Amino acid sequence: RYGRAELEDQIGAATGLAYTTAGGDTLSIEVSIYPGKGNLTLTGKLGDVMKESAQAAFSYIRSRAAELDIDPEFVEKNDIHIHVPEGATPKDGPSAGITMATALVSALTGRPVRKEVGMTGEITLRGRVLPIGGLKEKSLSAHRAGLTKIIIPDENKKDLEDIPDSIKEGLTFVPVKHLDEVLDQALAEGAHEG
Amino acid sequence: RYGRAELEDQIGAATGLAYTTAGGDTLSIEVSIYPGKGNLTLTGKLGDVMKESAQAAFSYIRSRAAELDIDPEFVEKNDIHIHVPEGATPKDGPSAGITMATALVSALTGRPVRKEVGMTGEITLRGRVLPIGGLKEKSLSAHRAGLTKIIIPDENKKDLEDIPDSIKEGLTFVPVKHLDEVLDQALAEGAHEG
Amino acid sequence: RYGRAELEDQIGAATGLAYTTAGGDTLSIEVSIYPGKGNLTLTGKLGDVMKESAQAAFSYIRSRAAELDIDPEFVEKNDIHIHVPEGATPKDGPSAGITMATALVSALTGRPVRKEVGMTGEITLRGRVLPIGGLKEKSLSAHRAGLTKIIIPDENKKDLEDIPDSIKEGLTFVPVKHLDEVLDQALAEGAHEG
Amino acid sequence: RYGRAELEDQIGAATGLAYTTAGGDTLSIEVSIYPGKGNLTLTGKLGDVMKESAQAAFSYIRSRAAELDIDPEFVEKNDIHIHVPEGATPKDGPSAGITMATALVSALTGRPVRKEVGMTGEITLRGRVLPIGGLKEKSLSAHRAGLTKIIIPDENKKDLEDIPDSIKEGLTFVPVKHLDEVLDQALAEGAHEG
Amino acid sequence: RYGRAELEDQIGAATGLAYTTAGGDTLSIEVSIYPGKGNLTLTGKLGDVMKESAQAAFSYIRSRAAELDIDPEFVEKNDIHIHVPEGATPKDGPSAGITMATALVSALTGRPVRKEVGMTGEITLRGRVLPIGGLKEKSLSAHRAGLTKIIIPDENKKDLEDIPDSIKEGLTFVPVKHLDEVLDQALAEGAHEG
Amino acid sequence: RYGRAELEDQIGAATGLAYTTAGGDTLSIEVSIYPGKGNLTLTGKLGDVMKESAQAAFSYIRSRAAELDIDPEFVEKNDIHIHVPEGATPKDGPSAGITMATALVSALTGRPVRKEVGMTGEITLRGRVLPIGGLKEKSLSAHRAGLTKIIIPDENKKDLEDIPDSIKEGLTFVPVKHLDEVLDQALAEGAHEG
Ligand SMILES: [Ca+2]
Ligand SMILES: [Ca+2]
Ligand SMILES: [Ca+2]
Ligand SMILES: [Ca+2]
Ligand SMILES: [Ca+2]
Ligand SMILES: [Ca+2]
Ligand SMILES: [Ca+2]
Ligand SMILES: [Ca+2]
Ligand SMILES: [Ca+2]
Ligand SMILES: [Ca+2]
Ligand SMILES: [Ca+2]
Ligand SMILES: [Ca+2]
Repeated sequence: RYGRAELEDQIGAATGLAYTTAGGDTLSIEVSIYPGKGNLTLTGKLGDVMKESAQAAFSYIRSRAAELDIDPEFVEKNDIHIHVPEGATPKDGPSAGITMATALVSALTGRPVRKEVGMTGEITLRGRVLPIGGLKEKSLSAHRAGLTKIIIPDENKKDLEDIPDSIKEGLTFVPVKHLDEVLDQALAEGAHEG
Repeated sequence: RYGRAELEDQIGAATGLAYTTAGGDTLSIEVSIYPGKGNLTLTGKLGDVMKESAQAAFSYIRSRAAELDIDPEFVEKNDIHIHVPEGATPKDGPSAGITMATALVSALTGRPVRKEVGMTGEITLRGRVLPIGGLKEKSLSAHRAGLTKIIIPDENKKDLEDIPDSIKEGLTFVPVKHLDEVLDQALAEGAHEG
Repeated sequence: RYGRAELEDQIGAATGLAYTTAGGDTLSIEVSIYPGKGNLTLTGKLGDVMKESAQAAFSYIRSRAAELDIDPEFVEKNDIHIHVPEGATPKDGPSAGITMATALVSALTGRPVRKEVGMTGEITLRGRVLPIGGLKEKSLSAHRAGLTKIIIPDENKKDLEDIPDSIKEGLTFVPVKHLDEVLDQALAEGAHEG
Repeated sequence: RYGRAELEDQIGAATGLAYTTAGGDTLSIEVSIYPGKGNLTLTGKLGDVMKESAQAAFSYIRSRAAELDIDPEFVEKNDIHIHVPEGATPKDGPSAGITMATALVSALTGRPVRKEVGMTGEITLRGRVLPIGGLKEKSLSAHRAGLTKIIIPDENKKDLEDIPDSIKEGLTFVPVKHLDEVLDQALAEGAHEG
Repeated sequence: RYGRAELEDQIGAATGLAYTTAGGDTLSIEVSIYPGKGNLTLTGKLGDVMKESAQAAFSYIRSRAAELDIDPEFVEKNDIHIHVPEGATPKDGPSAGITMATALVSALTGRPVRKEVGMTGEITLRGRVLPIGGLKEKSLSAHRAGLTKIIIPDENKKDLEDIPDSIKEGLTFVPVKHLDEVLDQALAEGAHEG
Repeated sequence: RYGRAELEDQIGAATGLAYTTAGGDTLSIEVSIYPGKGNLTLTGKLGDVMKESAQAAFSYIRSRAAELDIDPEFVEKNDIHIHVPEGATPKDGPSAGITMATALVSALTGRPVRKEVGMTGEITLRGRVLPIGGLKEKSLSAHRAGLTKIIIPDENKKDLEDIPDSIKEGLTFVPVKHLDEVLDQALAEGAHEG
């Protein structure tokens, strides 16, 4: 089942889209939280760019904690771990930025991530969403995994023309400029245990 | 006797199955706990993927401490050491994830690990069990070591057809999707000193 | 829109000019602040010289906190993150020094950075502005991005003769010797949310 | 005199047996303790495996402090240094594990190590003693150094047949499975200053 | 103007003389101080020897704080940053030792460094001044920069014969054996803001 | 004068003998102490073996503080810096062990080191003195520097036969087995400022 869309909305996990020399792939970003000292742990054989991307996502969230309904003290009294299975596969690049941000906000607020949503996009420290590469391959893998809504950077709209109609029919593409829009699209309202 | 099934149920030690170019092997995962500051030490010539796997197992357990009957304060006031003998042999890969999680839960709860159980499977931060490679070779080494029950990832069920009948007769394979099932199968009920 | 002048004045973000083998480019320097312990995080695939440049900018600001209307205790009770998108592009060199200093002062005082201003110059620990390379290419990219005022080191005045008139017509060059002049030119008076 | 058996029982020092391409050798493991914060320092040009071996020995002792008559608070309020002279000679491998454990227990309890005892064996986190290589060469060097009792892993009993009778006559070999047996054999009862 | 003698006496900045394969050069050593925890930051693309030289200078000053009219508590409650512009140029060697010591004492006492003074010399932990190389080239660059007094190690007096008369006419060479003499020569009496 | 015997007894500095491919040399070991948190800083382009040697010397002294008239609390409330000029020359090996120990004891007790004494010998964690190489070359350099008493490891007595009579006439060789003997020979009784 790994590599397929989730069966239920998840708290603290979001689905990203990766692009490798072997084609597109989906990847789960998992976040767990436990009592600690405000440390951030990053695992899953992540390259430096992906680690910095996680740090940027985390800093954005910390600097906007109030607006996101997150208690800043809660962050300082817990440790946060972001892991990307499958642990033996190297992963890098900035395009999981908005996925990591979404999984973090879900874990910190208890709001579940909608199971049908995949996403790809670099995040900046101001929450802006920057364009990514490999949208075509990523879309194919999203379709294969059973996702139905794909959040993409607004600047990647021009790349939609390259995606085959057969794929586009089953997918809704949502172009965004800012993380606020990502969270509106990806998070479900209520909080339930995943 | 090293490389054979334990003679008694053990607290803080579980038996994993490894797969190397030289074939399958069993490995003991040992955990010890002593007063400290919540640090995690990892030894036994472990590669980065295996170390990250241990961190993921530990974070899962910390984030689910209440459900697992573990006092979160206990974790913060002790140091935990995971060691994998034989110390001169390099070890890597994510497939010891559920074994490390099981040894940690055993050490933290005092519940012994059943001596006849071996296991293999990657663990995610949500406790999910992901597929591994080399099941055939791992099964041969488990049989050789005198184990009788092998916990495997549900997604590896399809690989059972490749295992010779002579091996399958002496082994019970238990496919699992989540660490909860691993712990149900591997941990004995009462607590005794190993 | 990334790579274009900002649409509004920004708090905690300033526009620098970079010079690579592929020509000139603009880059955004983003700063975010959140409760912490006085740590400085630097991301965006920055080389050692650029990181040291950020440290020098930060130290200058800390040693002149009073004159800059910054509460020194505020710095010690928060963490500061400087990020330079696009995260996969390596960046290095000292010429973003005054841009990083400007973004830091903006973030720490709440004074917005004027959207039409770009800048380039090494900063020293005394706030002096040292000359940089590639002014011609940087000017072309500034013009292309829609910027209208470019702050340059005083010692680079001699390089203005090499810039084509067509570019110089749309740009005002402001030569400076010290960061005080940079801040006078780049920061707007009031404080509004960007 | 270095490289010869000790003239008196020693507190905080034990004699191990090493095996290099140049043949067998004895080595002293020295432990000193002084007021500090519970840190462990390891010196003597030790390789990673030997350092991890020391950590495993130390963790075993910390987790069994009560049974070994060691005050856990004493450990946390002191720093411990393990050094292996001769400082310019690289040393590695897990076979000094039980020697390091013995020297640590001696230093922490004040019980002297018997001067006539040498030992070799990997230690696990449960105090188990695992087999080592080079027993023949190690025995020759032990004999040459004037030692009379050699503690070896139980699983190495089969290698005794390879040792020349002339050596075996002057040496008593004591096969052990657990560190408890090592300490029984190696530590003298009373406490005197070495 | 960078690379020329200062226009005014400076607090927390001193002028050193460097010697590279491209000839002699002057370099500014800048020191800034701000509330912190007693940390020392070193930037400017400095090699290990130059960093160790800065540490030696700092330790000498700390161990002689009373004699130098510096409050030891002040050092522990502030962070100190030493930066050597130009940030992209690699720098190494011990010969900036006395320059770094002079800039540190100036910053910590508020006594300005005389603008006409350049200096070169290794410093030891006892404040002794050891000989350096490249005095001829360093003198040429000092002269070119407009400096008029050069502090040199006493053991370099013998190298003065190699310096052309045209250079020696405009420069006063002051040979010294100890940092006390350096500070007497380089620091102005009163304290004013640079 | 550097490379010559001291003109006066020194507190916190001792003279060692080094042996390089270019022959023998003397080296000064300098120690300074200032308010801090018990940290040990090691500079002078020292290799790992020499750094570990310094750590062993320091640990020996800390574990024997009472016998050496050193207040253990004094050590914890100060930082200690060991520096070996000339900072650009790489240095390594264990043979400066007793020199570093002597300089440390001198700095910590205020007892001066006799100016006519040079020394060479590895130190162990029990204060034992182990043999070193290059005694002949070291003796030549000691004689050249004007030293008159040389402390050597007892196990190096056999190497004295290789030293030319012309050298031996001006030098007294003192063979020692333990640091206690080194300190008896090297430290002067009273305490004066060097
Ligand atoms: Ca996959
Ligand atoms: Ca297109
Ligand atoms: Ca094995
Ligand atoms: Ca199959
Ligand atoms: Ca760009
Ligand atoms: Ca020009
Ligand atoms: Ca030896
Ligand atoms: Ca045999
Ligand atoms: Ca220059
Ligand atoms: Ca000459
Ligand atoms: Ca020399
Ligand atoms: Ca001889």
